[in-house]
Amino acid sequence: MNDQARSSVDAGLTLAAFNSDGLLPAVIQQWDTGEVLMLGWMDREALRRTLTEGRVTFWSRSRQEYWRKGDTSGHGQYVKSAALDCDADTLLVRVDQVGSACHTGTRACFDGRGIDVATGTRPAAPADAVN
Amino acid sequence: MNDQARSSVDAGLTLAAFNSDGLLPAVIQQWDTGEVLMLGWMDREALRRTLTEGRVTFWSRSRQEYWRKGDTSGHGQYVKSAALDCDADTLLVRVDQVGSACHTGTRACFDGRGIDVATGTRPAAPADAVN
Repeated sequence: MNDQARSSVDAGLTLAAFNSDGLLPAVIQQWDTGEVLMLGWMDREALRRTLTEGRVTFWSRSRQEYWRKGDTSGHGQYVKSAALDCDADTLLVRVDQVGSACHTGTRACFDGRGIDVATGTRPAAPADAVN
Repeated sequence: MNDQARSSVDAGLTLAAFNSDGLLPAVIQQWDTGEVLMLGWMDREALRRTLTEGRVTFWSRSRQEYWRKGDTSGHGQYVKSAALDCDADTLLVRVDQVGSACHTGTRACFDGRGIDVATGTRPAAPADAVN
């Protein structure tokens, strides 16, 4: 990550653009392997806790409550870094994930859930001849 | 990714759980480096195109139209694999990204947009003593 334009936590909380339900999607990535572990949702308070407490807190849309990964499972998500995207409406959190990120017991929520897609290949031609 | 339970495209389209606006968040990851490039939104038709055409198609919530990364910029996203998460309400697409994924010109939409967070460290104790 390029660190040229880092924000303080307060600036990040002000900048964050929540949706009409007051929520922001947060992509959780293992910091060293790059593995995408899961996507969760945060309201402003969950975001504040995540940025200030060193562990990831989500807002559960189904249970309508805060939850902190690992409080019941022991599989904590320890925050290494965080960034908002160009529209400030998505958060990327790099974490150190203890054990499984998924409640089903798989390491990531996407494991074993692949779809047989048609793949694409970048053209060999220069980029300006792509289309 | 564990491929034990791969779905066909039709099964994936049936399984996908869209939100009340008919949309699903799609995390776009560079397949070889693991870099999280961006998050976009797909309706059922954008998902169908992404799974069958070898390039990523999104639904633009602001412009209310389909857009395919690279059609105007040349910076195409070529699909390598895709998976739904455990709730089938988030898609992870691994791609080969030509050039910049972000419309601002940065490689990823999160580049240079870090927040100075409090970091956390996993306990040295066994996992069952975490909390």
